[in-house]
Amino acid sequence: MDDEDTFKILIATDIHLGYLEKDAVRGNDTFNTFDEILKCAKQNQVDFILLGGDLFHENKPSRRCLHSCISLLRKYCMGDTPILFDVLSDQAVNFSNSKFPWVNYQDENLNISIPVFSVHGNHDDPTGADGLCALDLLSSAGLVNHFGRSQSVERIEISPVLLQKGSTKLALYGIGSIPDERLYRMFVNNQVTMLRPKEDQDQWFNVFTIHQNRSKHGATNYIPEQFLDDFLDLVVWGHEHECLINPSRNEQRLFYVTQPGSSVATSLSPGEAVKKHIGLLRVKGRKMNLQKIPLHTVRQFFIQDLVLSEHPDLFNPDMPKVNQRVEAFCQEKVEAMIEEAERDRLGNPLTPEKPLIRLRVDYSGGFEAFNATRFSQKFVEQVANPKDVVHFIRQKEYKAKVKEDVDFGQLLSHSSTEGLRVEDLVKEYFQTAEKTVQLSLLTEQGMGKAVQEYVDKEEKDAIEELIRYQLEKTQRHLQQRGVLTEEEIDQEVQRRGYSPPADRSTDRGRD
Amino acid sequence: MDDEDTFKILIATDIHLGYLEKDAVRGNDTFNTFDEILKCAKQNQVDFILLGGDLFHENKPSRRCLHSCISLLRKYCMGDTPILFDVLSDQAVNFSNSKFPWVNYQDENLNISIPVFSVHGNHDDPTGADGLCALDLLSSAGLVNHFGRSQSVERIEISPVLLQKGSTKLALYGIGSIPDERLYRMFVNNQVTMLRPKEDQDQWFNVFTIHQNRSKHGATNYIPEQFLDDFLDLVVWGHEHECLINPSRNEQRLFYVTQPGSSVATSLSPGEAVKKHIGLLRVKGRKMNLQKIPLHTVRQFFIQDLVLSEHPDLFNPDMPKVNQRVEAFCQEKVEAMIEEAERDRLGNPLTPEKPLIRLRVDYSGGFEAFNATRFSQKFVEQVANPKDVVHFIRQKEYKAKVKEDVDFGQLLSHSSTEGLRVEDLVKEYFQTAEKTVQLSLLTEQGMGKAVQEYVDKEEKDAIEELIRYQLEKTQRHLQQRGVLTEEEIDQEVQRRGYSPPADRSTDRGRD
Repeated sequence: MDDEDTFKILIATDIHLGYLEKDAVRGNDTFNTFDEILKCAKQNQVDFILLGGDLFHENKPSRRCLHSCISLLRKYCMGDTPILFDVLSDQAVNFSNSKFPWVNYQDENLNISIPVFSVHGNHDDPTGADGLCALDLLSSAGLVNHFGRSQSVERIEISPVLLQKGSTKLALYGIGSIPDERLYRMFVNNQVTMLRPKEDQDQWFNVFTIHQNRSKHGATNYIPEQFLDDFLDLVVWGHEHECLINPSRNEQRLFYVTQPGSSVATSLSPGEAVKKHIGLLRVKGRKMNLQKIPLHTVRQFFIQDLVLSEHPDLFNPDMPKVNQRVEAFCQEKVEAMIEEAERDRLGNPLTPEKPLIRLRVDYSGGFEAFNATRFSQKFVEQVANPKDVVHFIRQKEYKAKVKEDVDFGQLLSHSSTEGLRVEDLVKEYFQTAEKTVQLSLLTEQGMGKAVQEYVDKEEKDAIEELIRYQLEKTQRHLQQRGVLTEEEIDQEVQRRGYSPPADRSTDRGRD
Repeated sequence: MDDEDTFKILIATDIHLGYLEKDAVRGNDTFNTFDEILKCAKQNQVDFILLGGDLFHENKPSRRCLHSCISLLRKYCMGDTPILFDVLSDQAVNFSNSKFPWVNYQDENLNISIPVFSVHGNHDDPTGADGLCALDLLSSAGLVNHFGRSQSVERIEISPVLLQKGSTKLALYGIGSIPDERLYRMFVNNQVTMLRPKEDQDQWFNVFTIHQNRSKHGATNYIPEQFLDDFLDLVVWGHEHECLINPSRNEQRLFYVTQPGSSVATSLSPGEAVKKHIGLLRVKGRKMNLQKIPLHTVRQFFIQDLVLSEHPDLFNPDMPKVNQRVEAFCQEKVEAMIEEAERDRLGNPLTPEKPLIRLRVDYSGGFEAFNATRFSQKFVEQVANPKDVVHFIRQKEYKAKVKEDVDFGQLLSHSSTEGLRVEDLVKEYFQTAEKTVQLSLLTEQGMGKAVQEYVDKEEKDAIEELIRYQLEKTQRHLQQRGVLTEEEIDQEVQRRGYSPPADRSTDRGRD
């Protein structure tokens, strides 16, 4: 099938470069796997690489992380291999956000052998007054084509990158990560438009790249597949880390969805334990084939659940020395997983030696938890996560997790220990706050977002920027109303309550 | 003189990209001037650009700053203009620190029209375990050739980049910024060696780029010109911000020194008020010519000193309303400077409208200082520094500046208000600390440096890294000595005092 009419596209997502980069054991994992992915693209002589967001784990990647990424892209994606496809769309529209608004391989000063197209994810999304993200550094250096960047937060009009190879026409649609609820609302309000070429509409193979929640996290906190246009042929879904790369057909919309999943486990949850793959997508005419390619450099991850109350034959809370029995049983389980990992690794010299091992022990029903840290330390030479091999849970604990009342003081320590996202907590705080404590000149929404950016993205000026912005806005408003004295200002502020003329976020063209 | 045997080199230094980038008025100054410098290089069709360090003001430049820098370099330094000189030296040695150890214009994947060669400065020097600096990001992207990077902290052997254009041979020596006292010591101990080509030594024109204190800040806190080898022809001296670009001859060593100075005023001191220039250096055979080129985008800066006690005819402390008289006189002075700036700016559309104005008022002799902030605010529409137009000093105040006793608590606030370098204060602290409070497992030097990196360079892991390093080192040492019990360890630690087996810094290959 590999002929002059066939697009060969390497598909990957959520590479999370820099994840745990300070860890003595796991520090190089993400870089090794990115190396493998790029090498794979080169060996398979793909036409281009399509990334589904979260190339970087940190919004502000470290110098080492950026340096490694730039070096790897320069090493693998530059060279003399000719590019055999054309761009038919208006590149000034496709890449309007760039100072070099054209596809990198057509820049006569750069010898690109494998163009990379990427949307941004929620980890590496644009921040700050300039609305730049880490991908834009790569894009300014000519190493990545950052597409799917929307300028408005109320309406999205996606102009596809139109590619042609031989007789095959490929339309590349994309949306960089947007808060799910906002995008959900935009879809519901018919504010998301996917433009289509006027001529030969039926000849295009339409690929859409999205980086959002696919699984339902709440009524409006995800994007249902059926929101998407039915003229699409394939949706490449980023953000979700579980590898479900085999295209599944949406019977309502009649398109396929591939979810490549992350190339590194960033949490020790069951979804991350599914074997990691990337995809080699072939498109000829309107037919496609997706070949899954296992990643060999990915650290193995085995997870098992143990519900103590399901083994009354082995132990019950009233037995003497039941704790030792449980601990011994857990040790057996862990050792069995380590052995399984070792067998599995045989003949895979690229796979790191120490696996990730997680035993989740449900100890509800009167059992006691033993010291998980001390237990885990027994495996310090054998596993890559010797701090948290065993993890105790109770069936009911999930429900208790979201507390009724959160105060700001708790917020930060809370989030770091529990792993909850600060944005959720900020939102919760403002939702539960009494009307009386609401801020009077700053909107809840604006302040919440500023705090979130400050914490999540180390955007040090976010709060200051917001305050300056609101101040100016308020001053303008007061001027317009001809308010002059201090008393009048007080009255006007009281009159308008905490809701000033307009919300900053709508003016900023970004998340 | 512009012929096939003549090197044309644009010389600039201390561009300090990102300095005050958040300032509403001055935020774009450094980027505008970098644009002007690159444009000037292009218009003059130079063979290459030579930078003397501190291209970036911040050790960790903001995303916007990096993005602007990359975009400008890509815009001006890439293109079809052929490069007419060769590199004769072993590039793997010249650029051993790079993953792409060759000059960027010889990379077949990059179409470079103006190569940039740069050493790093003290603002943008290498930090962290990887020893990377901001220039290395540009270097990995193929936009800058970072040279003069020494791997050892005890000995420096400079292998020049040997260039040839027609019959002219140019040897490019350089040392990236190193703490002055260390480099001073290395020179004194004959640990700085400049290698020379074996053949035709007399035919080379030898240029040395250095980024150190040139003026004497203390007995060993600068680099005396006579330390430098006398085979050099021209020294390009960075770090010093005053433009003294006309080559001055060192009569002892018989070489010339050019000090281009910064292209932005980062302090309101007299040296920064000297008109800013860059240089166009022509070298043919062993002859050179340095043409100074004024920078038009640089914000004007006028400074004047007023010593009140020198005007007994105008005011003395016992006059009625002397304060108002002084303030009125100061206002006249400032207004005169603003007018002078306006006249001076005529016909220079590139020069920013608002100048920097500084009136230093020496009020010793019984005068009172008036409110400098309120006074400065009068000029908010006319000057770019409306917070500090006037600055009060007393003749004796400089001497009082360095206090006898500094404690750690004062350190940080102190440095931010007074503008002193944290490293100086840390050093001072350790020098004056009583023997009894000295740290027992951490060296003063190591800890001082870690604190400095933490504060100066936002190197968040510096302190943690040092402690881990020292711990491991101490453990190794104890193992070697066969120390086993806790008492023995205590004894050994006491025996060795605060000085563990070796200082971390000597193993790190960097400052």
